[in-house]
Amino acid sequence: MKYTAHIKVMPLKELLDPQGKAVNSSLHNLGLTGVNDVRIGKHIALSIEANSKEDATQMATEACKKLLANPVMEAFEVTVAEG
Amino acid sequence: MKYTAHIKVMPLKELLDPQGKAVNSSLHNLGLTGVNDVRIGKHIALSIEANSKEDATQMATEACKKLLANPVMEAFEVTVAEG
Repeated sequence: MKYTAHIKVMPLKELLDPQGKAVNSSLHNLGLTGVNDVRIGKHIALSIEANSKEDATQMATEACKKLLANPVMEAFEVTVAEG
Repeated sequence: MKYTAHIKVMPLKELLDPQGKAVNSSLHNLGLTGVNDVRIGKHIALSIEANSKEDATQMATEACKKLLANPVMEAFEVTVAEG
């Protein structure tokens, strides 16, 4: 079966996000003053061939732990859908 | 009212994603051979102060068009939630 895993990797709340701060300032300069805080992370889409949704979720989580996320600075969320 | 906008910015399907290809190869080298395709984009979280959900959505969309996404290479999706 074919599954698509969507992975959100975001900087931990406790840490500064300098890229987000820069974008926040730029948005203010563009007149979007209603924006208070910006945090920027990664969105990763994996196409996975697996026997079950559980297998696909496990594979995606392993990919995060081994390669995609740095647990010292980032938190990740995995959601898996069929197709 | 306070809203949080989650923005997903992904490379267009028609275009190559060299970063995704590199990650795909790395995942295969790590033994995760069930992964067929990888696409990598950005996830941006905005805290927005606005009068209504519609206002917040409009502000986030404007932020994408003016700064966060490059329409030549990227597509974006905005979802807004309260709080």
